Order: sequence, then structure tokens, then C-alpha cells
Amino acid sequence: MPIVVQKYGGTSVGDTDRISAIADRIVRAREQGQDVVVVVSAMGRTTDDLLEKASDITITPEPRELDMLLTAGERIAMSLVAIAVNARGCRAASYTGSQAGIITDTQHGKARIVEIRPQRIKESLDAGNVVILAGFQGLSTEYDITTLGRGGSDTTAVAMAAALGADVCEIYTDVDGVFTADPRIVPDARKLAQISYEEMLEMASLGAKVLQVRSVKFATLYGTPIHVRSSFHSGQGTWVTREEDVMERLVVSGVTYNRNEAKITLRTVNDRPGVAARLFTPLSDAGIVVDMIVQNISSDGCTDMTFTVPVGDYQKALELASSAAAEMGAAKAEGDQGIAKVSIVGLGMKDHAGVAARMFNVLAKEGINIQLIATSEIKVSVVIEEKYTELAVRALHAAFVSEGATNPVAESIGER
Amino acid sequence: MPIVVQKYGGTSVGDTDRISAIADRIVRAREQGQDVVVVVSAMGRTTDDLLEKASDITITPEPRELDMLLTAGERIAMSLVAIAVNARGCRAASYTGSQAGIITDTQHGKARIVEIRPQRIKESLDAGNVVILAGFQGLSTEYDITTLGRGGSDTTAVAMAAALGADVCEIYTDVDGVFTADPRIVPDARKLAQISYEEMLEMASLGAKVLQVRSVKFATLYGTPIHVRSSFHSGQGTWVTREEDVMERLVVSGVTYNRNEAKITLRTVNDRPGVAARLFTPLSDAGIVVDMIVQNISSDGCTDMTFTVPVGDYQKALELASSAAAEMGAAKAEGDQGIAKVSIVGLGMKDHAGVAARMFNVLAKEGINIQLIATSEIKVSVVIEEKYTELAVRALHAAFVSEGATNPVAESIGER
Repeated sequence: MPIVVQKYGGTSVGDTDRISAIADRIVRAREQGQDVVVVVSAMGRTTDDLLEKASDITITPEPRELDMLLTAGERIAMSLVAIAVNARGCRAASYTGSQAGIITDTQHGKARIVEIRPQRIKESLDAGNVVILAGFQGLSTEYDITTLGRGGSDTTAVAMAAALGADVCEIYTDVDGVFTADPRIVPDARKLAQISYEEMLEMASLGAKVLQVRSVKFATLYGTPIHVRSSFHSGQGTWVTREEDVMERLVVSGVTYNRNEAKITLRTVNDRPGVAARLFTPLSDAGIVVDMIVQNISSDGCTDMTFTVPVGDYQKALELASSAAAEMGAAKAEGDQGIAKVSIVGLGMKDHAGVAARMFNVLAKEGINIQLIATSEIKVSVVIEEKYTELAVRALHAAFVSEGATNPVAESIGER
Repeated sequence: MPIVVQKYGGTSVGDTDRISAIADRIVRAREQGQDVVVVVSAMGRTTDDLLEKASDITITPEPRELDMLLTAGERIAMSLVAIAVNARGCRAASYTGSQAGIITDTQHGKARIVEIRPQRIKESLDAGNVVILAGFQGLSTEYDITTLGRGGSDTTAVAMAAALGADVCEIYTDVDGVFTADPRIVPDARKLAQISYEEMLEMASLGAKVLQVRSVKFATLYGTPIHVRSSFHSGQGTWVTREEDVMERLVVSGVTYNRNEAKITLRTVNDRPGVAARLFTPLSDAGIVVDMIVQNISSDGCTDMTFTVPVGDYQKALELASSAAAEMGAAKAEGDQGIAKVSIVGLGMKDHAGVAARMFNVLAKEGINIQLIATSEIKVSVVIEEKYTELAVRALHAAFVSEGATNPVAESIGER
């Protein structure tokens, strides 16, 4: 029997009316003769409410206990969904991450899945149940309850889909699919019918909030097709799939932005072996994920190093960088939280030079100064002053993506 | 090291301020050099709120899923308590019923503990942690999450205290201890310094809400001393202990009442073997706990049978009794929800006749008609019309318990 994994986010299970609505959808999927596994997030603001309670008690809650607390959220949502599905005469049973065999490492608050043991879920499906599964949570190798970080329910869904060999992992959301840019900023942004794993991975990493990065990595690894679609209607959304299955190969598929990073610079660092290790090892030990790293060409045996970190880790990172700077005899570390990262992503870039140059031109024409640049085969990211975010996104979308965009590269390959 | 188990009810963890207050108390207990295990109920109205959500979806929620839902309540409370204790520099770790090895049967909503495997809790104590434990919940022999029924946290606490060989199980509550009667009805009701397990068991069974019946059974079985005390101050409460340890042996220790039962009568039942089995087997199969059963002396080969059940099971019980009546050729079953059970409880009754007769006299003097009578060695219960409840309780308290009660039986044994 084909297996479909459906993931519903917090808005989709926001209240008991919404839960009843998705229960109807789940029953329809089951009646189509599929095995159905449903992954749910916590209802609406539940997670924030729980975090607030913890912060009423202390600003530094014990991470193990915070995970125990937050996992109550999915537990409530999943059992209510199971109650609603059962009430429609369709047998359903809910399982926690622990019961579903989602084994993680021991990093509370941002645990990584190390293994899935789906035996119990398989047995439940074989017994004829619709399976309702708590997203966002797992059991650590030390038998403690863990959470996978914000958006972790996507990862639960895709990882379970991979473990079960599901035919598709449907991600239900309050938007219609993956857009070429944030429609709140770019009114003529359009929904993509398809996008490759690689592009989706870049877009998710670069700020598109529709899918958690790690979920896309799982899908890429196991070739699980993802269908991002609306929980409000049954129209097609965006299929995230292998590159060779993407029909329309755009030079630029999307323009993304991320205002949740901060920049730290160490000036006049001695340019000798081991310097980068001395700076980044303590950051890594503290569990801080460094995003962009840029080192200028050395002059006079000295160099500048700049890197970006999530805003939430900024203070800690600045402290660590400052103490590293002191040890290395560098001028002290400088920080800036007023930045944004704006990126263009597209498979077509692989085959076409000149996309980055054109991007810089577009920004220059708007008078936007570029602070940092990072490129990969299929994306170009720039860090700019935060206040220019919307302007930059609109200008880049108009230049590369909008209908009638004067995009010589795209035109040259005859796809627009 | 001595082990103390402390149980805090829903009011004691009602909000984050209250949680901070009990965290202080927990840390003090730990600093006195004891191993501390804390059992918590859900915060304030959480359980009711969750039940309401379920009933928004359906009036007959799947019991397995309802248990999954409700257990979120203790999970929230226990992790917040653990966060608060950790924030005071005292290491604490929380555990679900499942993690704590509380194994139950499979009766969702009113599961019974069949075994406790406290290995993980012992290891956590040995590692120097204060252990915070979810009350009210367990893991069934089928590996599903179960709940122990209303007040089940008391049972968790006493059962875990027994399994760990704890020195005392402290039950923190919003009253000062066990009273001779409900102080809201009887202003001069007084707190008992001690009470025997047997008396406490009867009083809990008969309506005193301070302890769940099953928790007292566990304590009786394992000889675990219980200290019922206030969560608002550190004064002594009531010790529940073995009969031989009770210093003051009262004829009547308490007057209780219960308005949550209903009465069902089958008239003119053929008085032949198998009739009671035919009536009560279906009730038992439906999981309905029958309390009092009274059968009148047979006349003309026919008899009347009356029994009481919890109000919540009344409709179901009446249906089952009616169909049994039809099969047995009895006149149809009659029901009455407007009743109350009023009881007097006391170890001294064992040694003294005449207590029941005196009770009936007291009620007769107030013009209260007695519908049913049930007695045991240490209690007498009567069913009366509900509207007389307060009057009966006050009259019996004045006659048997109050200072200056003209209680010839008590006087004769020189204890008052």
C-alpha cells in the first residue's frame, strides 16, 4: 500500500476547529487507500506560551527540562488530532517521538536525529491505524527527551517518510507553496511548481521559512519527494524533488533574505597557520553555528576576518571572539547586528557566468553597499545594511525573476 | 540517606509563583540531607482545559488518546518545577511515569499500577539529583500511556515511596491536614494529628477528598507513613500510619459525605440463585464500580435489590440494570440521583456496640429518613435525601466528635 506522510504546522492545528478540518483531510487521504502517517507541531502559540512560563521562573532554564516542557505541545496537538480522526470512524493512534523510535543525539534544544527505529509505527500501520506522530521531538541515546529545534517537525516528517519508504512527504502550511520571494515584500512573487532539493536547501538555509534546512537534507539523502502545499485548500503546491525531475530550469528560482544574523569582525589578525582554528574552535564547542566566513587577502602579515552567526548567539560569540582576539594579539572584535543577508538561488547559475556581477550591478544601482559576499554553484549571498532589505529583495526579484524581467542570462537559454 | 517523597497537587503548582515557592521548599528538604523525590499534578485547571478541548471535538474521545492528551499536564508542571529547582543551584531531573517505570494495566482513564521498576529513579538519586516525577500517569503493559484516574498523583507518590522504601510520603495540599469533617460545613471541625490507615481508607472511600483511596491502600500494604500537610506553611499536618502507632483512639474520627453517587433499585426480582450475578456482571464488564449493595429479605419468592454507583456511570448503569430487569422478569429498574451518603468512621467502633444505633437516633431527631445502611467494623454509612447532607453532617459531628459532645461510648472508654 502506498504510504503518505502529512505534516501539519502550528497554524494548521491552531484550534479545535482547524483540527477538525485537517481530520477530514486525513480521513480522505486514508479513504484513497493509502497508509497515512501524520506529523503535527504544537498548536498555534503553545510553544511560545510554554517558553514564557519557563522564563517567568528563570532566564536560563535547564536545557533537559526545557525540552521536557516543550514536548508537551506536540503531545496535546497529536492526541487531539487522533481524537478527531477516531471520532470520524477512522482508527488512529498517536505516538511520541520516543515511542516512534526517533533516536537523537544529546544536544538538548537542537538535537539531531541519529537513527529511526520505525518498527512500532510499521506495526501500527499494518494494524490498520492512521498514525499520528509528534513532530519536533525524539529520545536521546541517553534516554532523555530532546527537541530538534524550531521547525523540527519538518525534519521529523521527512526523516520518518524516508525511514518508511513513503511515496511522498506532504508539508501542509499556511502559504500555497514555495515562492520566488516573500510575497509580503514582493507582490508579484509567484509560486514555483517544482524546485530541486539543492535549490530548496539553499533557499531554506538563506531564510525561506517554508521548510527547515535539515528536513531538506534528509530528503536529498533519501530521495524523498516533498510536496509543500496549503492546508486551506487542495490545490497543488510546490514539489521539491531531484534535479533531473525538475522540468523548468530557472536561472534564478528565488530571492531570499535573512535578518536573523549578526556580523563579527576581527581586525589585524596575524596571518599564520592555526589562527582560524583558534577563533572558530571555541565557537563550535559552544554549539554556535557560524554561517559566512570571509578572510581578506593578507597585507603586512595581517588580515581581517569576518563571520556571521545567528542573532541569538551574538553576545556569546562576541565574547568568545573577543577573548580569542586578545590571545592572538589582534585588535578587539567588532560586532554589528544591523545587517541582512540577501541571496539569489537557482540551478541555472551552474551553467551561466555573470549572474553574480549582474546582482552586484542591480544593488549598486539602488545605492546599496555590499559588506560581504559568499557564493556557491547555485547561489549568491550578500550581506547589506538591514534597512535596505526590502528594497534589495524587490530589485533583485524584478531583475531576475518577475515576468518581463530583462534577464539576459535567462533569455540566452531561452527559458523566459 | 533517608528518602522523602513529596507530592504537590494542582493548586500547589497553580502558577509560576507557586512553583517558585515549592522549589524553595524542595531545596530546603534536600539541604537537610535527604534524598528528595517530588511528585506533581498538573497545574491548576490544566486537566480541565485539556478535557474541554477534547470535548470540543467529540463527546466520546478515544480513551487511549485522551490519556495521551491529559498526561501533557503533569509534563508541563514537572519540567517547570525541575527548572525552578535547578535555577536555585540544586540539581534536579524530571521523569515521566513511563521513564520512572510505573507500569499499569491497560484500562485507559483509570489504570491500576501493576508494578514499579524504580531503577532509573534510584540511579538519578544516586547521581545526586532531586527527582521530579509526573503524577497520575504510567505506561501500560502494552506500552501505551495511561492515567490513573482523578487524584492518581497521590497513588503515584505513595507507590513510588513504597518502591523506594522512603521514610515518609508527604502529601502537600491546600488544607492543613485531615479534618474530622469538612470545615466548610462544620465550623468546629478539627484537624486530626494522627489517623490509622484503616480509618483513612474508609474516610477516603466515603468522600473525604484529601487522599485518593488507592494511595491509602498502597500505604497500608507497604506500611509507608503518609504526612498530609499544608503547602502554604511548614506546620505539622496529619500523619496517616499503622493502627498501633495511633496514640489517640477515637470512637469516631470523622464524619464524611459523598454527593457523587446515584441509587438504582430493582423491585420484585425473583429471589433465586444467579440473580445477583446476572445483574452485576454486566456492570462490572462495563468497568462500573458498584458501591453499596442492599437486598431486602425475600417475601413471596421476590426481593428488592438496591445499589449505588458514581453519578458519572449512572445513565449507563441504569440501562444495564433495566435490560437485566427485563430478562429476569423484574419490574423495571428505578433510579434516583438526588441522594447523599453520610458516614461516620472510627477505630473505636470495633470495640463498642451501639454506635450505629446512636447514629440513627441522631438522624431521626433531625427528621432525616434513612434509605440505605451499610456498615463495616469501623464505619457506618447511610444514604439519605441529598438536601439533608449538611444538616446530617453537622448533627453527627456535634453528637460524636465536637468538644463537649455527649458521647457516652467515648466517655466510657475514658478517651474524651
